[in-house]
Amino acid sequence: MDMASHSIPEHSYDIVVQKFGGTSVGDLERIRKVATRIGRYVESGKKVAVTVSAMGRTTDRLISMAKEISSRPSRRELDVLMATGEQQSIALVTMMLHSLGIKAASFTGAQAGFLTNEQSGNARIVEVNPEKMLKAFEEIDVAVVAGFQGVDDEGNITTFGRGGSDTTAVAVAAALGASECEIYTDTEGVYTTDPHVVPSASKIDVIDYDEMLELASLGAKVLHPRAVWYGRRYGVKIHVRSSFSYSPGTIVTSLAEDKKMKTERPVTGVALDLNHSRINVVGVPDHPGVAADIFMALGHANISVDMIIQGVPGDASRQQMSFTVNKDQVEDALDAIKPVLDKLGGTAVADPKIAKLSVVGIAVGSTPGVAGQIFEAVSSVGANIEMIATSEVRVSVVIQDDKAKDALKAVHTAFNLDAVQ
Amino acid sequence: MDMASHSIPEHSYDIVVQKFGGTSVGDLERIRKVATRIGRYVESGKKVAVTVSAMGRTTDRLISMAKEISSRPSRRELDVLMATGEQQSIALVTMMLHSLGIKAASFTGAQAGFLTNEQSGNARIVEVNPEKMLKAFEEIDVAVVAGFQGVDDEGNITTFGRGGSDTTAVAVAAALGASECEIYTDTEGVYTTDPHVVPSASKIDVIDYDEMLELASLGAKVLHPRAVWYGRRYGVKIHVRSSFSYSPGTIVTSLAEDKKMKTERPVTGVALDLNHSRINVVGVPDHPGVAADIFMALGHANISVDMIIQGVPGDASRQQMSFTVNKDQVEDALDAIKPVLDKLGGTAVADPKIAKLSVVGIAVGSTPGVAGQIFEAVSSVGANIEMIATSEVRVSVVIQDDKAKDALKAVHTAFNLDAVQ
Repeated sequence: MDMASHSIPEHSYDIVVQKFGGTSVGDLERIRKVATRIGRYVESGKKVAVTVSAMGRTTDRLISMAKEISSRPSRRELDVLMATGEQQSIALVTMMLHSLGIKAASFTGAQAGFLTNEQSGNARIVEVNPEKMLKAFEEIDVAVVAGFQGVDDEGNITTFGRGGSDTTAVAVAAALGASECEIYTDTEGVYTTDPHVVPSASKIDVIDYDEMLELASLGAKVLHPRAVWYGRRYGVKIHVRSSFSYSPGTIVTSLAEDKKMKTERPVTGVALDLNHSRINVVGVPDHPGVAADIFMALGHANISVDMIIQGVPGDASRQQMSFTVNKDQVEDALDAIKPVLDKLGGTAVADPKIAKLSVVGIAVGSTPGVAGQIFEAVSSVGANIEMIATSEVRVSVVIQDDKAKDALKAVHTAFNLDAVQ
Repeated sequence: MDMASHSIPEHSYDIVVQKFGGTSVGDLERIRKVATRIGRYVESGKKVAVTVSAMGRTTDRLISMAKEISSRPSRRELDVLMATGEQQSIALVTMMLHSLGIKAASFTGAQAGFLTNEQSGNARIVEVNPEKMLKAFEEIDVAVVAGFQGVDDEGNITTFGRGGSDTTAVAVAAALGASECEIYTDTEGVYTTDPHVVPSASKIDVIDYDEMLELASLGAKVLHPRAVWYGRRYGVKIHVRSSFSYSPGTIVTSLAEDKKMKTERPVTGVALDLNHSRINVVGVPDHPGVAADIFMALGHANISVDMIIQGVPGDASRQQMSFTVNKDQVEDALDAIKPVLDKLGGTAVADPKIAKLSVVGIAVGSTPGVAGQIFEAVSSVGANIEMIATSEVRVSVVIQDDKAKDALKAVHTAFNLDAVQ
């Protein structure tokens, strides 16, 4: 994202950036509450840039209509279809603001200046040009921006993938020079793990970008990882808070200098990700360049591979490997590698019944004993560890999905993350 | 609309332009039928530019959501909201074409090159730049264009008003240099009057642009008047036909030289318009410039006035006048003239219970006896004529709405338009 090319014009007002998800704008009554909350900020003399998602389950409904037509609808057309959800929300939220006497205008992704690359369904922001919004702020108090969408340089509508409205909000904050971005959700903030699965999960008051990035990447659905990445890159503090209360939530910021924190909390949170499937490739020749061919093919098809393991060959001349991809890209992934397998020999089979459990902390990867504790807790519920990946701030294991929730509870307890009752 | 500035690139293929209304794309099964029909043209080697409306009652649903928020939602935001209906249709129709193995891509109004003026909700096309569509036709066979919408020169989304998808289709035909535009509807063509009201109405095989323009303007909902205007202006023959059959419908073209037709058919059709309300203004001063003040104020608010009468004053110093406006602009009209009345004195009251009955024929305005026959037929059902307007090709009368359907039948019969049984 290139913001340097747009100098932010001088202005005398404070800009607050807020993002409201699909639940918060689920019906007209909730939209009224959102508008009322925004109104409080306007009353205090602030300009507000609001990012909204599609209402409730709109996106799911649109996708299921598309899937009725084709199991694999064109990604370009799916973007054209899905972008309408956010476009409806911005119009309705803006009308509601007007009905409260607040000066507001809506902006589609294109109008808000979101230029992306051309990867339909998973586009990345290339540039945000906030000129129209800033010009509008000369007359209005609230700019309502459609989350999740932009246009490529040919004018095609693109979307950012699920959770992309978070990214829109943080990018708007960066482009407008706002120091903080509020993300409103249906929970009180970021928890040590999903409180719906582990009721004893405790709220985190402040968390480092790096830890949040790992937690978000690993299925903690409260915040989209790309949003965290933009926050870190452009120094935008992210405040995750409840749209049903006015209490403070979780601040995502830079704790790099706070050494004390590190030692006190080796583990910040535990996350469970059920959105990936494993693809097992067997019978490919065991010579250099085979893995490269496969992952080049996946790369050309714009498919992100998460974890990879290459097994010990049973037969000296044949190799096997496994990797995980997002569940909705499994068909595309199998298609992408088919020509390679047809040429080299070998077959690929997808296994959707997996779960990835990850432990995140600012130094878990280098803290002795963490990995051992995880393995012990996972084994205690009878789950086998099928794949392992580690980084400086996390340890992830792939297990079968039917044991996943028990394993999550066991790991959460093992690291003393349960809230004090 | 300026098409002269875009020379249409040489191409060796024939382009067919087709428009499918909301009923024709009302659900996925109907969309499949539409796609199949389009496929027949593609098989015969033609390129097809398809314009589609929003699915079924989508637009009505969106408007009623907006009205729940405010009785008078911002017109700009209403356009942002309504434009999503057609955007959903183009994506779904394109996906369905793909599922039949047809190469297709969708185009929003902006992508199809529709530049309009900035009159939200009732925008007029300033220019159509078909460059992107023509470039796409190098690779695809079907361009699916969102009807009813464009963008103004600031990038704001605009819509053309109800029935605007017809206009989109004819403008696409003109821009692409197609000689004919097919408008698919749920009737077999254009009738001498609304067959739902008068079952004996007969289908017209061929009709002149001027007559069709009057019929369309007067409530014959089968074709939007602006579409007819564009057809006449750019020489695009319009074929109104049924989306449920393959029989020929009604051709709208230029019959100016066909003198014989004129004499054989003094009356082509009769139309009833229940979409207007009358506004009665009483007690304004009777001096020059008053009417100008009132109609200037309406013009500035982008409100089209249909019929106007200025009454004989009861009091020498005070004047009264009546005019009709579209029902959904009544509130705007009252607001627009309020400052004028506050200054001059006088009050305005709206009367929604009116109907406009019009008789259209290529020379009815100058054919002796036609007006007399109309008045006689209207009186025969006990309706009072409250306003009258005539032009070369039509005579319109305003009557109370509860007598309107009876009057329509009486007039239709009086001019021998009933189908031979």
